[in-house]
Amino acid sequence: MDNSKIIIREANKEDCDQIVKLIQELADFEKMPNGPKIDAKTLRRDGFGEEKMFRCLVAADGDNLVAYALYFFNYSTWEGVNVYLEDLYVTPTYRHRGIGTTLWRKVAQVAVDRKCNRLDWVCLGWNKQSIDFYKSKGSINLTSQEDWNLFRLSGDNLRAFVNNTDKK
Amino acid sequence: MDNSKIIIREANKEDCDQIVKLIQELADFEKMPNGPKIDAKTLRRDGFGEEKMFRCLVAADGDNLVAYALYFFNYSTWEGVNVYLEDLYVTPTYRHRGIGTTLWRKVAQVAVDRKCNRLDWVCLGWNKQSIDFYKSKGSINLTSQEDWNLFRLSGDNLRAFVNNTDKK
Repeated sequence: MDNSKIIIREANKEDCDQIVKLIQELADFEKMPNGPKIDAKTLRRDGFGEEKMFRCLVAADGDNLVAYALYFFNYSTWEGVNVYLEDLYVTPTYRHRGIGTTLWRKVAQVAVDRKCNRLDWVCLGWNKQSIDFYKSKGSINLTSQEDWNLFRLSGDNLRAFVNNTDKK
Repeated sequence: MDNSKIIIREANKEDCDQIVKLIQELADFEKMPNGPKIDAKTLRRDGFGEEKMFRCLVAADGDNLVAYALYFFNYSTWEGVNVYLEDLYVTPTYRHRGIGTTLWRKVAQVAVDRKCNRLDWVCLGWNKQSIDFYKSKGSINLTSQEDWNLFRLSGDNLRAFVNNTDKK
């Protein structure tokens, strides 16, 4: 397909309304439509304000954003600074053109440029198509290979724990 | 047991040699003794230099560090800024005194103070004792409950992907 009009670039403040829509599309695909609570104002503040909490690349077809990769730096006590890829998403009508691979590779380039040894992310176990793609590039599933499980304390349980009112 | 001499405080530059030793102890416990490649110099630069990539709390008995909790802020496209707990470790002879709970609660307090809704971390699936403890405070296992799997592209595979030399 013709990718000649697709431009891959860093996101800017003005992209946030469209990025929020793509975030919702991704959540719908993940069968968790009620997940996103974020709005464009929050994204603008957190990504393009004084304290940058994430970075984002987008693929644009004219004025329309058709894909995004949102990432940040995290820290490993084994290897130091690494890159964590929070989201990689291509809207359905633009798939199978290599846009996702290009975005992913650019994030990997950021990691290598920063001398990071790791690029990490999470993926739903049923998403076999993505997993096959990741594995074809040498990625490993740390959950199935090393038994790492992801845990979360959130919302009311988080606040109860802090207030020490969680005791039964 | 007597906790009166134990002081919980923020880590400082001078703690890094001892923190590196505790990081190795944790890796030994996790049965991955060859995991840590980090040194105290790197920790000093990344945690206490110009760009702070992590924060760390320690428990000290006099001059000896006996526990640590190392964390940083990450970003969710569903909920914005959150806290990620990279390591929580108490050296064996100081366990069962509540030091781990105190450190964990202080990190949770950081999350609540920053208006984060989530505190995330990973744990090995065989570490039942820790998992039972986490669950007793309302934590959920996102891997078993929602099928989230952790993926990684690293080392030579990461560099080959960036250089586009991964094609077979």
